[in-house]
Amino acid sequence: MKKLLFLAVACGITYWATAQQITGFTPDQSKAQHQLEAAFDALLSADSLESWMQRMAAEPHWVGTPYGEANARWMQQQFASWGYDARIETYQVLFPYPRVRLLEMTAPESFSASLKAVPVEGDPYTQQGDALLPSYNAFSTDGDVEAELVFVNYGIPSDYEELERQGIDVKGKIVIAKYYGSWRGIKPKLAAEKGAIGCIIYSDPKDDGYYRGDVYPEGAFKNATGVQRGSVMDMPLYPGDVLTPGYGATARAKRLKREEAPTITKIPVLPISYADAEPLLRALGGPVAPESWKGALPLTYHIGPGPARVRLKLEFDWKLQPAHNVIATLKGAQYPDQWVIRGNHHDAWVHGAADPVSGMVALMAEAKAVGMLAQKGQRPARTLVYCAWDAEEPGLIGSTEWVEDHLPELQEKAVAYINTDGNGRGFLGAGGSHSLQTLVAEVAGAVTDPQTGVSILERRDARILVGGGKAGFNLSALGSGSDYTPFIQHAGIAALNLGFGGENAGGEYHTIYDTYTHYKRFKDPEFAYGVALAQTAGRVVLRLANAEVLPLDFKPWQHTLETYLEQVMETAESLRKEVTQHNALVARKAYNLAADPTRPQAAAEAKPAIPYLDFSPLQNALAQLHTTVDGLDLARAHALTPKQREAVNRKLMAAEHQLTRAEGLPRRPWYKHQIYAPGFYTGYGVKTLPGVREAIEQHNWGEAQSQIQHLATTLNGMAQYLTQLQNDLNTPK
Amino acid sequence: MKKLLFLAVACGITYWATAQQITGFTPDQSKAQHQLEAAFDALLSADSLESWMQRMAAEPHWVGTPYGEANARWMQQQFASWGYDARIETYQVLFPYPRVRLLEMTAPESFSASLKAVPVEGDPYTQQGDALLPSYNAFSTDGDVEAELVFVNYGIPSDYEELERQGIDVKGKIVIAKYYGSWRGIKPKLAAEKGAIGCIIYSDPKDDGYYRGDVYPEGAFKNATGVQRGSVMDMPLYPGDVLTPGYGATARAKRLKREEAPTITKIPVLPISYADAEPLLRALGGPVAPESWKGALPLTYHIGPGPARVRLKLEFDWKLQPAHNVIATLKGAQYPDQWVIRGNHHDAWVHGAADPVSGMVALMAEAKAVGMLAQKGQRPARTLVYCAWDAEEPGLIGSTEWVEDHLPELQEKAVAYINTDGNGRGFLGAGGSHSLQTLVAEVAGAVTDPQTGVSILERRDARILVGGGKAGFNLSALGSGSDYTPFIQHAGIAALNLGFGGENAGGEYHTIYDTYTHYKRFKDPEFAYGVALAQTAGRVVLRLANAEVLPLDFKPWQHTLETYLEQVMETAESLRKEVTQHNALVARKAYNLAADPTRPQAAAEAKPAIPYLDFSPLQNALAQLHTTVDGLDLARAHALTPKQREAVNRKLMAAEHQLTRAEGLPRRPWYKHQIYAPGFYTGYGVKTLPGVREAIEQHNWGEAQSQIQHLATTLNGMAQYLTQLQNDLNTPK
Repeated sequence: MKKLLFLAVACGITYWATAQQITGFTPDQSKAQHQLEAAFDALLSADSLESWMQRMAAEPHWVGTPYGEANARWMQQQFASWGYDARIETYQVLFPYPRVRLLEMTAPESFSASLKAVPVEGDPYTQQGDALLPSYNAFSTDGDVEAELVFVNYGIPSDYEELERQGIDVKGKIVIAKYYGSWRGIKPKLAAEKGAIGCIIYSDPKDDGYYRGDVYPEGAFKNATGVQRGSVMDMPLYPGDVLTPGYGATARAKRLKREEAPTITKIPVLPISYADAEPLLRALGGPVAPESWKGALPLTYHIGPGPARVRLKLEFDWKLQPAHNVIATLKGAQYPDQWVIRGNHHDAWVHGAADPVSGMVALMAEAKAVGMLAQKGQRPARTLVYCAWDAEEPGLIGSTEWVEDHLPELQEKAVAYINTDGNGRGFLGAGGSHSLQTLVAEVAGAVTDPQTGVSILERRDARILVGGGKAGFNLSALGSGSDYTPFIQHAGIAALNLGFGGENAGGEYHTIYDTYTHYKRFKDPEFAYGVALAQTAGRVVLRLANAEVLPLDFKPWQHTLETYLEQVMETAESLRKEVTQHNALVARKAYNLAADPTRPQAAAEAKPAIPYLDFSPLQNALAQLHTTVDGLDLARAHALTPKQREAVNRKLMAAEHQLTRAEGLPRRPWYKHQIYAPGFYTGYGVKTLPGVREAIEQHNWGEAQSQIQHLATTLNGMAQYLTQLQNDLNTPK
Repeated sequence: MKKLLFLAVACGITYWATAQQITGFTPDQSKAQHQLEAAFDALLSADSLESWMQRMAAEPHWVGTPYGEANARWMQQQFASWGYDARIETYQVLFPYPRVRLLEMTAPESFSASLKAVPVEGDPYTQQGDALLPSYNAFSTDGDVEAELVFVNYGIPSDYEELERQGIDVKGKIVIAKYYGSWRGIKPKLAAEKGAIGCIIYSDPKDDGYYRGDVYPEGAFKNATGVQRGSVMDMPLYPGDVLTPGYGATARAKRLKREEAPTITKIPVLPISYADAEPLLRALGGPVAPESWKGALPLTYHIGPGPARVRLKLEFDWKLQPAHNVIATLKGAQYPDQWVIRGNHHDAWVHGAADPVSGMVALMAEAKAVGMLAQKGQRPARTLVYCAWDAEEPGLIGSTEWVEDHLPELQEKAVAYINTDGNGRGFLGAGGSHSLQTLVAEVAGAVTDPQTGVSILERRDARILVGGGKAGFNLSALGSGSDYTPFIQHAGIAALNLGFGGENAGGEYHTIYDTYTHYKRFKDPEFAYGVALAQTAGRVVLRLANAEVLPLDFKPWQHTLETYLEQVMETAESLRKEVTQHNALVARKAYNLAADPTRPQAAAEAKPAIPYLDFSPLQNALAQLHTTVDGLDLARAHALTPKQREAVNRKLMAAEHQLTRAEGLPRRPWYKHQIYAPGFYTGYGVKTLPGVREAIEQHNWGEAQSQIQHLATTLNGMAQYLTQLQNDLNTPK
């Protein structure tokens, strides 16, 4: 009965959706496209997703493993069987495998960390013993250090400010930081900058364990022994192979010496479980940690330093490994040189059922359905390139090397890159280039949520409303953490990242517990959201592939830029207020008088005043863009000749590239995009208008002012570009 | 060296303070008063405080114990030796002593709670075995119940709303609630209203244990076995002896039957330690508790109900016990019938070094110094009444019975009541009648902080500023929780509550660990803040006693009332917005769509819309008061004849009483004050403008409107009263 009701509702939605015109399509074309999408949906099968996951996640398959290569070969065959021109492109990339991992406490008591997650009953995948990759952080440097321990909370900049206030220095110490609060690689990077000689990262049960919910195998969350693996490569500097920055790691590429590679950590770093962390934390003395630092272990969190002393010894096998990207092409019927690129990685830290296989199998289902439609004569107008990336986990290596290796061709031919990664039950999450926001919103209105029967757009709106936000679809901005990074931030190709989640919480991420068994119980038992992801990403791909006029929309893009500029200006303003307030309190000795005299504290000092910046170049540029975008009517392109329209589409394809700057961002030229970048001190976390924003956050006022100028130049260039585009649209036939 | 510097600073402050005119005093009188206060300070000795604490806190001394009576007799002798007319006034009050305490888990495993805090090394007081009062909640009813357990967070109204959203009913169950979040008595009261048959209250280590800091004896915080005792009498209905509401519990007083006493709980309730709570919480199933409910035990907090089942059996000895109040009077030299009343309780749950002895010994030091000054000829102009209350812990019983017993005389003669209770290192905390705000602010400017050498006012300002607030001295409003309640809220006598704290955190409150040993290590090792409290309260007392014109100031009072009215109006407005928003979300099914379909949840329902209330009677009354208070110039009274001035002072003494209403608050006529009351559903937590505010919070719109009218009548009466006062001041000599 319930199912029938759902069907009825779904039909209603489908009817509504088919009634909608799609941006970039004429009414007739829209109708045909809706029919195509209905046929596409009919070819998707949850059973395929599940059986493919069982196959791909049967054994560990990190880069360089035989099982990883077998997966690549199998996927290649699959794509080929669906009518794709499928090949494997292999790069030779540096990948460290842990040879020695030792962590022990030498004082006040001795304790040796086990560094081993236990296999659990009911999940045979966790019982594969030595086949499981030992837990470690890839691209930690080798090292053998011993020192007093200091607890640094998440190990992010604000935590070191707190330590400074308390007069605690980490110089010459080993720090222990909780996972979360930033991308993990920031922790050893900052610790090294502050003079620490080693870094331990642990999963606190408050963020990732029993505090959140029942632990595996009773529940989905991290048990006491689970360890999150992960890369600590300095990806905010550049991702990809550490030895070949900016160019493909082909067999014969020139390589940096390992000692010169700037993205390998400066100090050894090791992730551990909360079972291993507990004795270390319990042995710390010194001040009690501030409220917000405290986790959920049954102890009083102290900062140290000491009396706990620890020794950390790490050695890695530093070998080149083959990274096998699977590249499957379906040539476009009308515009073979316009490529819609779609990717997901296939390598995992261990089995990776959720990360990345759940996304990978959705991509495959999508590719298969598209291939079958093509075989039945419904070949997309533009070329589709389906990619299964290797070596994403250690640092987006497979995708980065491929983009670097094919850069000119990609910049000429790419329409957009659509990325997915792990997926689960819940709500649509979508980030990307804001010129694609309208496209994604329309698609979200056309896909039915498997649990409620309303569109995924409506369900997402409901969640936002209940959370106190405003309804309305907005793309988030892309930072880093998956394979879109080289496309958007290096190559300047419009990109999206799509996935479902929010009802799939668990502690399996990058552990031996990310298995099919765990996925099936806690993530997406019916694989319904795998199908929903295929429907969503597939529609995005098919609309980009078939649209007569590429469905870009610069209005939401321009509006979003305005909000970013407001944020940046507010940041400067609130920093100014903070400093003024702080200095007033210092002047009246308020900090000293308010402090407990029995607790040591550094004397509060006045800070340099914050100058006013001249934001007018950006304000003027955005005002100009507002006018330009308001005057831009892409729908006119339907009335142009095919040749004229192709020229317009070519311009649209290259629009995102106008937002890059050849010199890149300060101190990290690999990052060309001027609107979106991962934060230098947040890692995956995005910084929008990064040149300006990060200069302000770092109190680098001269750089902030010059970055304002550079960004204004970029935006003025974009305004000119769009004005030319409008001129092309005005051209009489 | 450091000490010398402090002295120099202190002298500077004293000089500044002596230069200040004191409200209620002429310049010459101010000078004399400053000299008196300097002489007063010189008679205070930290050593006395310490030795008195060692004596009074040597053994447990709850109401009815021989040691409690011995303390009373000893204090009586002390006061007498300092020149006071000291007597003991005894009331016969119902006090339950625990005879049977049993808590066990019967399913899914069996577990028997130990209900016993362990003695600790280094603290001999904790080793007194059976002399220590067993842990229990006084005025729990007897009972023997067994049922499934439900975790209800703090057991306050918002928690039951959450349970309702999750479709969980506590009817017929036993609830387990964390201490804190409200006064403890609210928990069994609400649980019973919701149909629960038993209530367990435990101290979670997050609020009160290792999460906050190292536990006793290593640190000050609550160890796994510590249990907070405390009364659960329904004090928001009326405090004091449960059998004699509204009149003194004299030996021959008419008494209710125990079964009729409305302030005894409806269901049995028992406090336990976190060691005893852990197995119960671990055995709960059902949904995982919401984020804000989770404590710091190393487990996943579930709500239940069950599978844990518990049995709770409680029996008490319900006997009348003698409550011995010590009343020590120093007759005023000029106005013997104008009484400045000063009190602190002397009974404790166990040893009570911090609560109440730290405050009691400060009061005694103050009384001794005043007595010695009087013996040297500096007798205060008004009569001082120093009180040491018994039976405060079980429900403000000693003070309440005394106030009820002497009500007409007190309402005629009392100038004000100044209360203290536990005290420790840190910052001045002060609450009370806002007509006394100027007095307290001036005193705070004249007392030197022992740790920093600036005034306690300046140190308090520094703390407020660093916390992001605005500097400037404001009294907080009084709810309940100590002996000021019968004075201000029942008798309508202006009252203050004073104490230091903020650097004395610990977990000893109402446990066997509140000992001299603990106090000396963690609370106020030098007894310097005991002396500071004597200096502060002593100045308040001496200024009230000697002022030519009573130092009341209605400007801050009127201003504070305006902020209360704003708050109440904002509350109504934000409730309206919430309901409007909620109903809009219900209408578009947003709650259902946003919810995880795999987790049971009650269907969200539309709520009745919130009507607009007519606040204009209050707005007009406050506008009138503004004008009246602006025109009121009490300094003119210095120019009146002594007889005219006495009439003015008599009017000032009775001013607070104008803020009461004979009918009291709805459903609790004992509470007469219309501005301040303890919350019906918060307990100790204050509700200002309680009739109006609570009606709004309970969505009782008819009552809200009639309470607005009643309050406006009260405030208009006050305006008239103050206008008459001004007329008296205008009377030519």
